[in-house]
Amino acid sequence: MIKVGIVGGTGYTGVELLRILAVHPQVTVSCITSRSEAGTSVADMYPNLRGHFDLAYSEPDPSVLAACDLVFFATPHGVAMRMVPELMASGVRVVDLSADFRLKDLQVWSKWYGMPHESPEWVEKAVYGLPEVVRDEISKAQLVANPGCYPTAVQLGFLPLLEQGLVDPSRLIADAKSGASGGGRQGKIGMLHGEIGESFKAYGASGHRHLPEIRQGLSAAAGVETGVTFVPHLVPMIRGIEATLYAELKTPADFERLQGLFEERYRDEPFVDVMPFGSHPETRSVRGANLCRMALHRQEQSDVVIISSVIDNLVKGAAGQAVQNMNIMFGLKETLGLEAPALLP
Amino acid sequence: MIKVGIVGGTGYTGVELLRILAVHPQVTVSCITSRSEAGTSVADMYPNLRGHFDLAYSEPDPSVLAACDLVFFATPHGVAMRMVPELMASGVRVVDLSADFRLKDLQVWSKWYGMPHESPEWVEKAVYGLPEVVRDEISKAQLVANPGCYPTAVQLGFLPLLEQGLVDPSRLIADAKSGASGGGRQGKIGMLHGEIGESFKAYGASGHRHLPEIRQGLSAAAGVETGVTFVPHLVPMIRGIEATLYAELKTPADFERLQGLFEERYRDEPFVDVMPFGSHPETRSVRGANLCRMALHRQEQSDVVIISSVIDNLVKGAAGQAVQNMNIMFGLKETLGLEAPALLP
Amino acid sequence: MIKVGIVGGTGYTGVELLRILAVHPQVTVSCITSRSEAGTSVADMYPNLRGHFDLAYSEPDPSVLAACDLVFFATPHGVAMRMVPELMASGVRVVDLSADFRLKDLQVWSKWYGMPHESPEWVEKAVYGLPEVVRDEISKAQLVANPGCYPTAVQLGFLPLLEQGLVDPSRLIADAKSGASGGGRQGKIGMLHGEIGESFKAYGASGHRHLPEIRQGLSAAAGVETGVTFVPHLVPMIRGIEATLYAELKTPADFERLQGLFEERYRDEPFVDVMPFGSHPETRSVRGANLCRMALHRQEQSDVVIISSVIDNLVKGAAGQAVQNMNIMFGLKETLGLEAPALLP
Amino acid sequence: MIKVGIVGGTGYTGVELLRILAVHPQVTVSCITSRSEAGTSVADMYPNLRGHFDLAYSEPDPSVLAACDLVFFATPHGVAMRMVPELMASGVRVVDLSADFRLKDLQVWSKWYGMPHESPEWVEKAVYGLPEVVRDEISKAQLVANPGCYPTAVQLGFLPLLEQGLVDPSRLIADAKSGASGGGRQGKIGMLHGEIGESFKAYGASGHRHLPEIRQGLSAAAGVETGVTFVPHLVPMIRGIEATLYAELKTPADFERLQGLFEERYRDEPFVDVMPFGSHPETRSVRGANLCRMALHRQEQSDVVIISSVIDNLVKGAAGQAVQNMNIMFGLKETLGLEAPALLP
Repeated sequence: MIKVGIVGGTGYTGVELLRILAVHPQVTVSCITSRSEAGTSVADMYPNLRGHFDLAYSEPDPSVLAACDLVFFATPHGVAMRMVPELMASGVRVVDLSADFRLKDLQVWSKWYGMPHESPEWVEKAVYGLPEVVRDEISKAQLVANPGCYPTAVQLGFLPLLEQGLVDPSRLIADAKSGASGGGRQGKIGMLHGEIGESFKAYGASGHRHLPEIRQGLSAAAGVETGVTFVPHLVPMIRGIEATLYAELKTPADFERLQGLFEERYRDEPFVDVMPFGSHPETRSVRGANLCRMALHRQEQSDVVIISSVIDNLVKGAAGQAVQNMNIMFGLKETLGLEAPALLP
Repeated sequence: MIKVGIVGGTGYTGVELLRILAVHPQVTVSCITSRSEAGTSVADMYPNLRGHFDLAYSEPDPSVLAACDLVFFATPHGVAMRMVPELMASGVRVVDLSADFRLKDLQVWSKWYGMPHESPEWVEKAVYGLPEVVRDEISKAQLVANPGCYPTAVQLGFLPLLEQGLVDPSRLIADAKSGASGGGRQGKIGMLHGEIGESFKAYGASGHRHLPEIRQGLSAAAGVETGVTFVPHLVPMIRGIEATLYAELKTPADFERLQGLFEERYRDEPFVDVMPFGSHPETRSVRGANLCRMALHRQEQSDVVIISSVIDNLVKGAAGQAVQNMNIMFGLKETLGLEAPALLP
Repeated sequence: MIKVGIVGGTGYTGVELLRILAVHPQVTVSCITSRSEAGTSVADMYPNLRGHFDLAYSEPDPSVLAACDLVFFATPHGVAMRMVPELMASGVRVVDLSADFRLKDLQVWSKWYGMPHESPEWVEKAVYGLPEVVRDEISKAQLVANPGCYPTAVQLGFLPLLEQGLVDPSRLIADAKSGASGGGRQGKIGMLHGEIGESFKAYGASGHRHLPEIRQGLSAAAGVETGVTFVPHLVPMIRGIEATLYAELKTPADFERLQGLFEERYRDEPFVDVMPFGSHPETRSVRGANLCRMALHRQEQSDVVIISSVIDNLVKGAAGQAVQNMNIMFGLKETLGLEAPALLP
Repeated sequence: MIKVGIVGGTGYTGVELLRILAVHPQVTVSCITSRSEAGTSVADMYPNLRGHFDLAYSEPDPSVLAACDLVFFATPHGVAMRMVPELMASGVRVVDLSADFRLKDLQVWSKWYGMPHESPEWVEKAVYGLPEVVRDEISKAQLVANPGCYPTAVQLGFLPLLEQGLVDPSRLIADAKSGASGGGRQGKIGMLHGEIGESFKAYGASGHRHLPEIRQGLSAAAGVETGVTFVPHLVPMIRGIEATLYAELKTPADFERLQGLFEERYRDEPFVDVMPFGSHPETRSVRGANLCRMALHRQEQSDVVIISSVIDNLVKGAAGQAVQNMNIMFGLKETLGLEAPALLP
């Protein structure tokens, strides 16, 4: 059994980790920390966990965390970078669900997250945990930076095209839409049901923290600097991200070949599902499941490739992908604890 | 492995059965029937099942069904009563999720369902499958009538009071609220998002088919005829039922004793959770889970016992309870395949 | 033109007042106050008001308020009671949308609102502004206590029965459901979309501040102390309240007569609509409109009268009723500025 | 007073016309037709209209329609083109909310709407009713083709850029999202709350009927053939469209100048609101209002102009724009009956 610790488990990614780990046959959760909720039972905070965990939030205790095989960070940015070096020293492995170790360029990181980085050496050593790209590195990594939700949906959708150099990398467009759980669980007026319900809007259209992460990943895949326009939107629902991606073919292409390319690229991926050409993936078809489902489209007389890519932002976009990474790191079956179908309807 | 057949699997209870059985270690689904969708793959109809089932809907074939160990009926009323006798003769066991075998009084059944009953002898033999009341009979039953969604939430909430004779059985009130999935998956204008979204209303307030089923169950528990007023409401959400129950104590009682009574009554029940006195169960705390969660309340200077009881109408109110009954019928661990926590948020 | 001031206009009742007054032909809004948002334009805070008001929030200024003909208080409880005496002295008329002047019994008020009352003399003089009950007093009042949202829906539904003494006043039950806007516009975690969406629950089941207000109104109508059980619920929608009311007839009654009684009672009321017997009012049918719509139901062999009553909590339950009271106080046509149909769908 | 007739008034655009006309001071609705609902009172079908109209649906009667000053068609495509010629002959003016007269190219129309056009001569004479573009022609028109919902939001957003020739007209992208009311009021399974709620998806990504309408309008504005990629999406809400538009500047431009250009272009338009640069328009800010609200955005080091444009699909996208056109046609104040602020929250 893998002894797991969770740092910062009061938010939606924290409870989602617990929901998934509750049925994982190879994991025991030995501690979950929260400064604000220390002493509170997780089941009192999240009644869906009643009967599943006899566990209370505790103050973060370095010695307790050091005794874990793996520690998940489900914290706001700025926390993991301070605690990780000590954990690394004690040989603990870490999957950080926050943004602290995602960006290799420290200046870019500081600019978007508004603070200097306190653990530059580990930024270098951290593996960006998108299994569909760097599975082997993840298996050997001591520190995995779990990708952001939007970047997961956007990168998986663009990857096959960029890896093959089929589209103009300088004018990619990603129009993404997310449910409200992506905004976290703080008492912000802008996230009230009364503000979000029955309404739709773009946000961060002039620049969002996930933009540099997306650019970094796409540029690596393309082998050249990419130019991507990314606009996130808020959907009046709780879970789910849909990203509609637009790319221009360098040379007119046979779309059947493109479909084949996508199916080939992801044939052996347990958590990426390429639907038949012209399908319309629904976010509900991945609700609660660790899956990225996508489909290609073309409009008449057009050389624009359209990809619709959906994930559950809390699962393949956060906690599920973190558990997938854990499975890889510990040599377990990659799908262990992640087999259940999505909740539909 | 139990060979399972599903008759009428295109609706929400059908897909929910598949979602649950997909991870049940002791079941193989050998056939799923639908006249309208014969030939369609279940994964094409319900994309959340892509990769989980390589199964297509087929015309109902008596010989195929006769070869199953258990057949679930997820059909509109009137279908099971016609097919059950032949299946019984061939020794197959059946869990009927429809209303055909729930009411013992055939006149009442005919009045509410608008047709004569065609299998009276099996109405008599059928066991009303509320495990918390008749677990042993279920274990031996060949035909189990799976309870309705509202009746499950209402009966479990009132039971402890009626069994002990603590409240006036002649003036029970059940004000129940359900998500839209309870209305099924037919193209009814009244169930469009444009009609249901952002609105709330009572329906069937002058009489609903679940009223006689509730009365039958409560009367059996009380040992006398009960008088219950039942008003269902439609909530702009997909899953979940909350029933607020009102009963008058015959003699002023100590509410701490009542709380103890409920906890005692359900102490060994894996799928009933009595929360601390004064709690407010949320339907999301049981979303996707086979669970009835309840709490008691009292208002100052009042002898009205208030119980709030929640279930997922598609799980403990339908498919989950059906699988729970199957587990009991086949001597499996009652919780097998039903262990996952609810999906929250 | 009536010079109107609004104290505390940043919440949902404040913006709703502005939305209604924007098209009221006899009103000019001369000031709207907010300590937290002083200086902010109302159109920046509420973009639906862009182009309708060239008005910014200001610090409350007694002299400016004293120059108004009418001041609306859309503040949390405890504010109006401190400012009202001075305004009364300067001859300004006030409609208080908060709870400060609703309860005549100061001990009860202090118990539920957790502070001593600082303006007892005005509690005595204040008129409880339910026009369908005390229209004349309102027309002469200097201070009107605008009813709460739940109390409006519940009282209007029970009134005809209690005024005629037809039902047992000691065992009334009001099961009420409200959209999230009733919870106001503060950054409370419990009101996040992620917490409320796709879920339903009871709250305040052991006691809610609107209970004494309901009891006071119903007792006045019945002429005796009433015993009412009131349980509010939270619906995953923004606007709307539905209250399902249960009362026991003292003597078996002809329900056609009851229907006639309700129609007669409200025949001349512009803002109460009694639907045909057995109808199911939808909250969306009053969305944005100053209307209470209700219908009666009976279940076979039962002497329980069931009434379903719906309002928009922000309109007939708050701002709309406040404007209706203003129209009455200033001798205007009662429906002025309140004629538009509800927004459906 | 203008005598108005409505053909096909049972759908959402029909009831929305009635909601708006109910408070229009210069209109009387003399008839509303429906073959399926002939005899049904509009108030029974749409309870929000109780007390506003004493009107029942009737079989379409040419003589009655011929006696109207104006007839609105709120019908599926294919109906207006058959009835319009006779009405034109009798001198009645018509605003057609369907697609019958929007496309000038009959081949394109037939291809997308699957039938030959039966009134080619009137296609030629019809004025495409986007007041912000052809106000004068509308004022003189006998037949106005009311624009589609998506085309209204998309065209108004792109217009200033194309009219000035500032962007590459060959690679425009419009990623649009709509609430469910856009799908109409028929009993389609795909539009059930159980199918749409809590989910998001693209649809018609390979081609949608509004694409040729958008291309026609944009090409006229640009003076050259435009290449536009248009992908609609379904949002789990009832009303509202948000379109995020992407265009590439031909030459690096000063975005302040672009903002000024938009403000200048729409300065005198009562129903177009250009928000400050970098704002995020919410669909709720135009709910129920005849308004298109938009804002511009730019991402660092990018020459992609991003425009977010929102409307209420039933108002500025249908019934409201139709009434706006009527006001223009009859020389009334353009804003008459359309002054009320949006319903927020």
